Amino acid sequence: MAELTTLEEHRCFDGVQGFYEHASEAAGLPMRFGVYLPPQAREGPQPVLLCLAGLTCNEQTFAIKAGAQQHAARHGLVLVTPDTSPRNTGIAEADADWDFGTGAGFYLDATREPYAQHWRMESWLMEELPALLQRHFPLRTDRIGVLGHSMGGHGALTLALRHPGRFRTVSAFAPIAAPTEVPWGQKALRGYLGEDRAAWAAHDAVKLIEGGAKAPPLLVDQGEEDPFLATQLRPERLEQACAAAGQPLELRRHAGYDHGYFFIQSFIADHVEHHARGLAA
Amino acid sequence: MAELTTLEEHRCFDGVQGFYEHASEAAGLPMRFGVYLPPQAREGPQPVLLCLAGLTCNEQTFAIKAGAQQHAARHGLVLVTPDTSPRNTGIAEADADWDFGTGAGFYLDATREPYAQHWRMESWLMEELPALLQRHFPLRTDRIGVLGHSMGGHGALTLALRHPGRFRTVSAFAPIAAPTEVPWGQKALRGYLGEDRAAWAAHDAVKLIEGGAKAPPLLVDQGEEDPFLATQLRPERLEQACAAAGQPLELRRHAGYDHGYFFIQSFIADHVEHHARGLAA
Repeated sequence: MAELTTLEEHRCFDGVQGFYEHASEAAGLPMRFGVYLPPQAREGPQPVLLCLAGLTCNEQTFAIKAGAQQHAARHGLVLVTPDTSPRNTGIAEADADWDFGTGAGFYLDATREPYAQHWRMESWLMEELPALLQRHFPLRTDRIGVLGHSMGGHGALTLALRHPGRFRTVSAFAPIAAPTEVPWGQKALRGYLGEDRAAWAAHDAVKLIEGGAKAPPLLVDQGEEDPFLATQLRPERLEQACAAAGQPLELRRHAGYDHGYFFIQSFIADHVEHHARGLAA
Repeated sequence: MAELTTLEEHRCFDGVQGFYEHASEAAGLPMRFGVYLPPQAREGPQPVLLCLAGLTCNEQTFAIKAGAQQHAARHGLVLVTPDTSPRNTGIAEADADWDFGTGAGFYLDATREPYAQHWRMESWLMEELPALLQRHFPLRTDRIGVLGHSMGGHGALTLALRHPGRFRTVSAFAPIAAPTEVPWGQKALRGYLGEDRAAWAAHDAVKLIEGGAKAPPLLVDQGEEDPFLATQLRPERLEQACAAAGQPLELRRHAGYDHGYFFIQSFIADHVEHHARGLAA
């Protein structure tokens, strides 16, 4: 069987937006992801922007709704959009809630049963997927940036902080900045990691920064009319932690904008440019 | 009860993307539509681009997938995205097929039962909706352009040809140009209008142009890898009819592109600019 299955490919801004599946060793199941190859990829390998989506999303959501391809085509960036969890795991309770389990992998490796076997998003994204991408697409895995939205913003921040040097550029839209302190994060961390609060802290951007972890300068956009701002996202905690630790952060608050992709598409040009500049340097 | 119900509103490119519902007299049922108000609408009424979607789409599809708001915001155009049919009509057979009935109104008034009562898309779009919009939004119904995709491309062309002077600008992506000659169109025209072929011809862009109907200069984009190109769309028939009748047409064929929104978003900037220029003149 081929290592990679092509599900769809569409010409888009003179490049190709594809969706693919492979038998993931990390997850022990088929995993899906999207790849946008800009026109420059026909000339040779290009830098990569890993785009991590939020709760309930899949590998198509960001590719369909964010409007990022036009900017990736201009700058010559490959966009990679992974699914947000394993699917069809046979674990009935994993499908019960929209904010935990299926579609809610939180970009970590679960240690608690019944999730430990399949919910290994961090291993998949940091080890298996880059190697697979390198074998099949014209891209440079030595020049990767990471961007994420909401749960994916948490993913972008924590993966960058947990793996120094792996991402040259980092940005987020409305990230879950302090998951150990909010309901979405507590539910996920308890569900995937059990009751050990020290294990939780290792997947909390604020706690990681407070503990001395470093990341490239962070660009974070947050809508002021985001209904989850105070209860789930808490960007002020990120601001405090970065200020105290000397971690560069540009936090932009946007009046009137909410949590969804109409917000993301309004500012995606700035993010892609931020990554393109950093990845070209 | 209020004449208009706001379902959602989201800040987007400094404007507002909203979705609304009203009790339609034409359809005898609640009908939904989207409105994007660009930032310029805060200063006063702006020209309008009516955007008609294709089979299976609803009032959100074009608003979510086409990436048009950024360009509408730049040019000061209001975008209106109507649903593609009445919904919840109680007619079981209307939900049986994806290419007829629900989600497939074909932008005409049905005369055949059981569709004649509710499937009155042309009356809704040409009479009731503009008046409603004029009462509730800062827009200029004397400056309207129309754009459509696939079934919506058929809608844009036929509504412009059937209502001279109502639309100042017209464009389409992959329109069903000759519905009387292809399976999608024949199924819809038979289903909504019965067996009278003369009635069909009145809703066929090619036949209308051959019969002497005129429209503003047409901009049409077509992907050459569109799987429906030969069987359902037939842009060459539009090209022939326009050439014979002296109807201005710019038909652009794009190598590698298919039928979907990854194609549309790649060229939407040109379309919005085409309408903005014509509507400002």
